[in-house]
Amino acid sequence: MKLRLARYVPILDWGRTYDRSALSDDLVAAVIVTIMLIPQSLAYALLAGLPPEAGIYASILPIVLYAIFGTSRALAVGPVAVVSLMTAAAVGQVAEAGTMGYALAALTLAFLSGAILLVMGVFRLGFLANFLSHPVIAGFITASGILIAASQLSHILGIRGGGDTLVEVIEGLVAHLGDVNPVTLAIGVAATGFLFWVRKGMKPWLRARGVGPRLADVLTKAGPVAAVVVTTLATWGLGLADRGVAVVGPVPQSLPPLTMPSFDAGLLRQLFVPALLISVIGFVESISVAQTLAAKKRQRIDPDQELIGLGAANIGAAFTGGYPVTGGFARSVVNFDAGAATPAAGAFTAAGLAIAAVALTPLVYFLPKATLAATIIVAVLSLVDFSILKKTWAYSRADFFAVAATILLTLGFGVETGVSAGVILSIGLHLYKTSRPHVAEVGLVPGTQHFRNIRRHAVQTDPAILSLRVDESLYFVNARFLEDLIQDRVAQDCPIRHVVLMCSAVNEIDFSALESLEAINTRLTGLGIGLHLSEVKGPVMDRLRKSHFLEALNGQVFQAQYDAWRLLSAPAPAAAAR
Amino acid sequence: MKLRLARYVPILDWGRTYDRSALSDDLVAAVIVTIMLIPQSLAYALLAGLPPEAGIYASILPIVLYAIFGTSRALAVGPVAVVSLMTAAAVGQVAEAGTMGYALAALTLAFLSGAILLVMGVFRLGFLANFLSHPVIAGFITASGILIAASQLSHILGIRGGGDTLVEVIEGLVAHLGDVNPVTLAIGVAATGFLFWVRKGMKPWLRARGVGPRLADVLTKAGPVAAVVVTTLATWGLGLADRGVAVVGPVPQSLPPLTMPSFDAGLLRQLFVPALLISVIGFVESISVAQTLAAKKRQRIDPDQELIGLGAANIGAAFTGGYPVTGGFARSVVNFDAGAATPAAGAFTAAGLAIAAVALTPLVYFLPKATLAATIIVAVLSLVDFSILKKTWAYSRADFFAVAATILLTLGFGVETGVSAGVILSIGLHLYKTSRPHVAEVGLVPGTQHFRNIRRHAVQTDPAILSLRVDESLYFVNARFLEDLIQDRVAQDCPIRHVVLMCSAVNEIDFSALESLEAINTRLTGLGIGLHLSEVKGPVMDRLRKSHFLEALNGQVFQAQYDAWRLLSAPAPAAAAR
Repeated sequence: MKLRLARYVPILDWGRTYDRSALSDDLVAAVIVTIMLIPQSLAYALLAGLPPEAGIYASILPIVLYAIFGTSRALAVGPVAVVSLMTAAAVGQVAEAGTMGYALAALTLAFLSGAILLVMGVFRLGFLANFLSHPVIAGFITASGILIAASQLSHILGIRGGGDTLVEVIEGLVAHLGDVNPVTLAIGVAATGFLFWVRKGMKPWLRARGVGPRLADVLTKAGPVAAVVVTTLATWGLGLADRGVAVVGPVPQSLPPLTMPSFDAGLLRQLFVPALLISVIGFVESISVAQTLAAKKRQRIDPDQELIGLGAANIGAAFTGGYPVTGGFARSVVNFDAGAATPAAGAFTAAGLAIAAVALTPLVYFLPKATLAATIIVAVLSLVDFSILKKTWAYSRADFFAVAATILLTLGFGVETGVSAGVILSIGLHLYKTSRPHVAEVGLVPGTQHFRNIRRHAVQTDPAILSLRVDESLYFVNARFLEDLIQDRVAQDCPIRHVVLMCSAVNEIDFSALESLEAINTRLTGLGIGLHLSEVKGPVMDRLRKSHFLEALNGQVFQAQYDAWRLLSAPAPAAAAR
Repeated sequence: MKLRLARYVPILDWGRTYDRSALSDDLVAAVIVTIMLIPQSLAYALLAGLPPEAGIYASILPIVLYAIFGTSRALAVGPVAVVSLMTAAAVGQVAEAGTMGYALAALTLAFLSGAILLVMGVFRLGFLANFLSHPVIAGFITASGILIAASQLSHILGIRGGGDTLVEVIEGLVAHLGDVNPVTLAIGVAATGFLFWVRKGMKPWLRARGVGPRLADVLTKAGPVAAVVVTTLATWGLGLADRGVAVVGPVPQSLPPLTMPSFDAGLLRQLFVPALLISVIGFVESISVAQTLAAKKRQRIDPDQELIGLGAANIGAAFTGGYPVTGGFARSVVNFDAGAATPAAGAFTAAGLAIAAVALTPLVYFLPKATLAATIIVAVLSLVDFSILKKTWAYSRADFFAVAATILLTLGFGVETGVSAGVILSIGLHLYKTSRPHVAEVGLVPGTQHFRNIRRHAVQTDPAILSLRVDESLYFVNARFLEDLIQDRVAQDCPIRHVVLMCSAVNEIDFSALESLEAINTRLTGLGIGLHLSEVKGPVMDRLRKSHFLEALNGQVFQAQYDAWRLLSAPAPAAAAR
């Protein structure tokens, strides 16, 4: 019983061996992550169209719940860029930004998303995330990064913006280009330039000036905080808010409030598909971060338990004024690098953020939105990577097509259309490929018992035997293809007395394909041609034995293609080298 | 140029060799089919919720257009049971039965369906029909047959009915059970009983009484006409229409009218998905009839040209007062049996029906609807076949699950939900199966060069070599599965020095799987274990050569698993029989 409970509540596992050394590691990591998370949480809330405090609230209880139910020791859960963008797109369809209904819809989205993740976890449906291929994910992340960066340009320019697609965002920018606020623009450009330099050039610059590697590392991580502090002070000291610089403004000084999502059936129905997409995308992002970090320390991640951890975190967000959350790449890597030893580091981070929510929120009143936008732009542009297009073009046109379509549709029609189309396209292209399988005519490699394609190798053949190696499972999508192929081949070629289907690559024969094989057998019997199978795999053979096919088969089933060859080929030296 | 035109217009092919013998065969077939089609067309129009003449109109121009563009020599195109039911379900959602809007929506549905078929034909998308597995089709046809028969019971009982699902139909019947008209019931039961007897018992009964086989055949086919004539005369002679027997009533005496479908964007959008389903289901039904009949005469059907033929027929129906049509089983078999030699038989049938539309329609005024309902019930109950459940249960649980779900969802939620769920389920179950592929650990069958599963065969193994045969293509759905499997296996088993992936069943390695293989290679290199591939198929190898994987691979690629065994296994007699 204890063991079974520990499966669903991993804290019972690592909690028993917790000691002072782990505590000190976790506390140091928590301080570093907390400092980094304050501006990031405010910025992502802005991206999601929510009041800034929602970003902080979404980082507190969710982190604690993930620490209890999750399996990764380094994953930091909270608002992330792509999920914030998807939240804005989903909630924007059902409510006006800035209204109570908008915040309520965001809570409801988090609740739904949490419920979906929990159900997937309990029913062990983590494999569904595999339906997103690597190239589709890469394309989606790249396109989302571009969309997010473009959407933040309005804050840098100090004008109104918005829109779910690249065209809408650009149209919005162009329409308001006359309203550009020069002071805001100056702050935004300076902050963006500084943050890019922090990311790329600061560490070598410091090292060249004799700063030690450890200190250079800490200073580099403090860069975004410096940008926040400097621009806030400048805005306050120079009275720039009166000169049209948009600032964060009043943020309530409070612990996360107790909130309720809506249980209105109509709203739940409208938000269901977006919530499903957010759950799957969030899960895929989170699990890949968690697995990358776990592999470095030879720890193990249980994907189904991760679903439960993320589900609990989202339910937590729904009841404490947050919005959908997941495991973020940047924050998790910082947590890991800072030496977090157990999920308790997350709990301490939550405590740090709670203190910040109560004590520090007045300090961000004069924080310019342009600085937050700069933080986001610099973070998401590191996600943009077009090399996947080049790599897939060289390797596989189908993968290239899927990734190109995902990028274009995400940019052109928004995140939901983009990712749905990517999934459907990858599956469709896979089915299309398997619907016209590669079928090789094979012959014997002289001096061996090995059979290879007659077009690629110098092999022995016998004109009376047609040996076909079908390089695909036989199932409904390609059942008729094989029927047509054999019919065409036999009609052309008169001396054929035996057809041998070499099934070494046939991993399944479903009921539709079974009916096709029966039809082929009937037809060949009518023509006086024998139908044989060889190298049928164990599981496939087990299933064929349950049908009447083996009784009806006019030929034999051989264990090896070579056995078929020995028995069926003419004993006289009719076999000629090709 | 001429040849290319003949590809799209097959009449240019068979038309050139048309002679008097073919003409006489075609004429005889046309007379027989015309007589059979008159009551059937009226009945199916009734089922579709349309005025009776729509059924006749839908059989005239469509037959001619199919004769010009189609490739089957025996297929008879017109209204069929399942498509009529789907039409009723689709049009019923956008208009009230009996209104002008209803007939207009039916024309629009035919137009959309024709356009979809034409586009599929021009772009050679006939393979899309393969996405419907045999069991799903069988389940759908069975469930549709039950739905149709149930929906006709109200006409037999002489009460009002309706509904798209079995529950709705039964509720409708129960609600009006007090209104049963005893005279109608008597006619309906008598007609149904007679028609069942005609189908099952009449021929043996006639033969036993010394009637020749040819005459018995003709009399059997005339059975439904006899039922129509007798019940019409009885209703007219006994004045039964005044005693509440619903009759066909006035049917305009005219050639098919020139009609226009609606081009309202909203209506087109609402009807698009139903039109797509009708196109695909109609195409699958039609092509399977056409191929069955063509195989008997060793003729060939071109599926993509069939799409064009059926598309033209539906466009024709849309402009001449019809509704969606396809190649019907019963009418095509009758046409074939009656000796139709070329598609010209269809044209003569069209002429016969045109004459009937102008001259014979007053005669059906007193035809009871109960007789038409009896015709439909007897026809569709022959489609109901639950044996597919038993067959798939024995052979494959996944196929059983797909067929059972298709039947239940069609009965419970209507035809569109049923067939969509069937397609999605078959694809989903296939992906699920391939997401957890069968992976066998293999060893050498002593005295051969052949490797088989160590759990099923007595084979030689070497503790330093882990030989895994992956029985599935490697692609995004199962990419992570292999990564996890090898990691688990290598972690358990210390003496392993080499991992050999035997790729005889790997028909594809997509980009996601390539990235997984790279990750496996990196991980095994770190553990000092060699990764090798063997029996990689030509097309897969071609693709791997385009990537950097082969350079990064720490081991080798062997042509045969036996080569890997010879090189890697310890030269000392460390190999032990397992």
